[in-house]
Amino acid sequence: MFEERLKEVQDAVEAAMQAAIAAFPQSDLRDAMAYAAQGGKRLRAFLVLESARIHGLTDAQAMPAALAIEALHAYSLVHDDMPCMDNDDLRRGLPTVHRKWDEATAVLVGDALQTLAFELCAEPVLGDAAHRIELVKALAVGSGAAGMVYGQALDIAAETAATPLSLDDIIKLQAGKTGALISFAAQAGAILAGADRAPLAAYAKALGLAFQIADDILDVEGSEETAGKRLGKDADAGKATFVSHLGLAGAKARAAELVAEAVAALEPYGPGAEPLRDAARFVIARDK
Amino acid sequence: MFEERLKEVQDAVEAAMQAAIAAFPQSDLRDAMAYAAQGGKRLRAFLVLESARIHGLTDAQAMPAALAIEALHAYSLVHDDMPCMDNDDLRRGLPTVHRKWDEATAVLVGDALQTLAFELCAEPVLGDAAHRIELVKALAVGSGAAGMVYGQALDIAAETAATPLSLDDIIKLQAGKTGALISFAAQAGAILAGADRAPLAAYAKALGLAFQIADDILDVEGSEETAGKRLGKDADAGKATFVSHLGLAGAKARAAELVAEAVAALEPYGPGAEPLRDAARFVIARDK
Repeated sequence: MFEERLKEVQDAVEAAMQAAIAAFPQSDLRDAMAYAAQGGKRLRAFLVLESARIHGLTDAQAMPAALAIEALHAYSLVHDDMPCMDNDDLRRGLPTVHRKWDEATAVLVGDALQTLAFELCAEPVLGDAAHRIELVKALAVGSGAAGMVYGQALDIAAETAATPLSLDDIIKLQAGKTGALISFAAQAGAILAGADRAPLAAYAKALGLAFQIADDILDVEGSEETAGKRLGKDADAGKATFVSHLGLAGAKARAAELVAEAVAALEPYGPGAEPLRDAARFVIARDK
Repeated sequence: MFEERLKEVQDAVEAAMQAAIAAFPQSDLRDAMAYAAQGGKRLRAFLVLESARIHGLTDAQAMPAALAIEALHAYSLVHDDMPCMDNDDLRRGLPTVHRKWDEATAVLVGDALQTLAFELCAEPVLGDAAHRIELVKALAVGSGAAGMVYGQALDIAAETAATPLSLDDIIKLQAGKTGALISFAAQAGAILAGADRAPLAAYAKALGLAFQIADDILDVEGSEETAGKRLGKDADAGKATFVSHLGLAGAKARAAELVAEAVAALEPYGPGAEPLRDAARFVIARDK
């Protein structure tokens, strides 16, 4: 049931994303944007569309917001993979943009995908201008110098720090690096509907942390082939993670608790929020 | 008169920009953002504020839009200066961000300044949500894969092209690289007021081209000390420019014609548009 809905979202997002990018003038830049924005779990898009659905909005009405978060996420991966950042050769099972093209293209592709994300937030189909501008604001706050990019900067600083990060430091870092965008995605439906965001914010807070703990577990236990990216990086770099602090069993137990918290936070939405509950369970069960 | 008003704009923009950046959590990232966003001619901000003024809006009412264009411009410079792009050590008379910090910081600073630009477009003081979302749309179109970043990608492709660019190619490249944002800046006031943009669009089209021709002339005739950046780059790289196509005298004559066109396009606004006319004249008279 959940897998089918996720597949449906993946297919719809893929088609709409490629169509949005195809609207730009033909260039190597456009080809590389299409390449970088393809694939992925589309979990963030799923959260946008399902949070919209529980507020009575169809996939079609919320699709540009789902594409916006995926374009934003794709930009962050392209820049994060660059030699001066994480220096990764593989992403989603394919060569990274700077490997397939070059670093200049990677810079520009990331820049243009970020711009596309904000352009998509302005799409009239998303409804009231007041809600669309609220979406712009939330996406900017979640992804900028107090959100995702802030988390990335902390992450880079941690690599050259004299002492490993404490658990609190890691939670702060991850709240920015991955948590802020997951939080945006889960609240997008409420923003578009002009509804109370508090239950979805609570859901997202627990979900984002569970997601990152699961990522740390995957970095230790996962298969590179299935994940489509380099693993074991944190241990190789001697980096403090949830696993290094809590142990594997402790990390798994904490992630399960957080999923239970996330599921409980959705109580106000009744049975219609089941796909969001499934998404929370998926986050710690996934193998990529 | 014009110089005084430009100085007033520069001072107001500098203070407001530093205040906007100071609102982010303390970090090296924030310090580097503040560094990258300081200084500059603030010509784009001037165009925003003056186009707003002829529509009855005060500087205070339009300031976030002026900051947005300057943050966007600053992001493009930080990324453009990186080793994989133009590889410049000096900008506005100071070491570039990747020289003062490192390349990772330059990537993140550029990313965060772009995000800040869109966040600023959402500021309530700018007025109607419908106008603010239109501003977001115009900024995204002007700066993304059909605008500024498209122009930058064409510029990079030209560096490895077998034959030098034709004059038409250069005009197309520059319409993206610098023209699209100047066009946004000059139309911002009309967008915020929900007014007809056509006269300002005509003004901006001529102005943007004049600006770029003047840049090419400056690259040949200017002083590095005054400009605060490396000059003579195009000739060194054997790159086709307006000057290489038209000659110095021909380029100056064409720029002067374009300024006259820009000035004429402002006729509907009467004497209140005199600062915008002065700005057009300034664009070809400037020494940096």
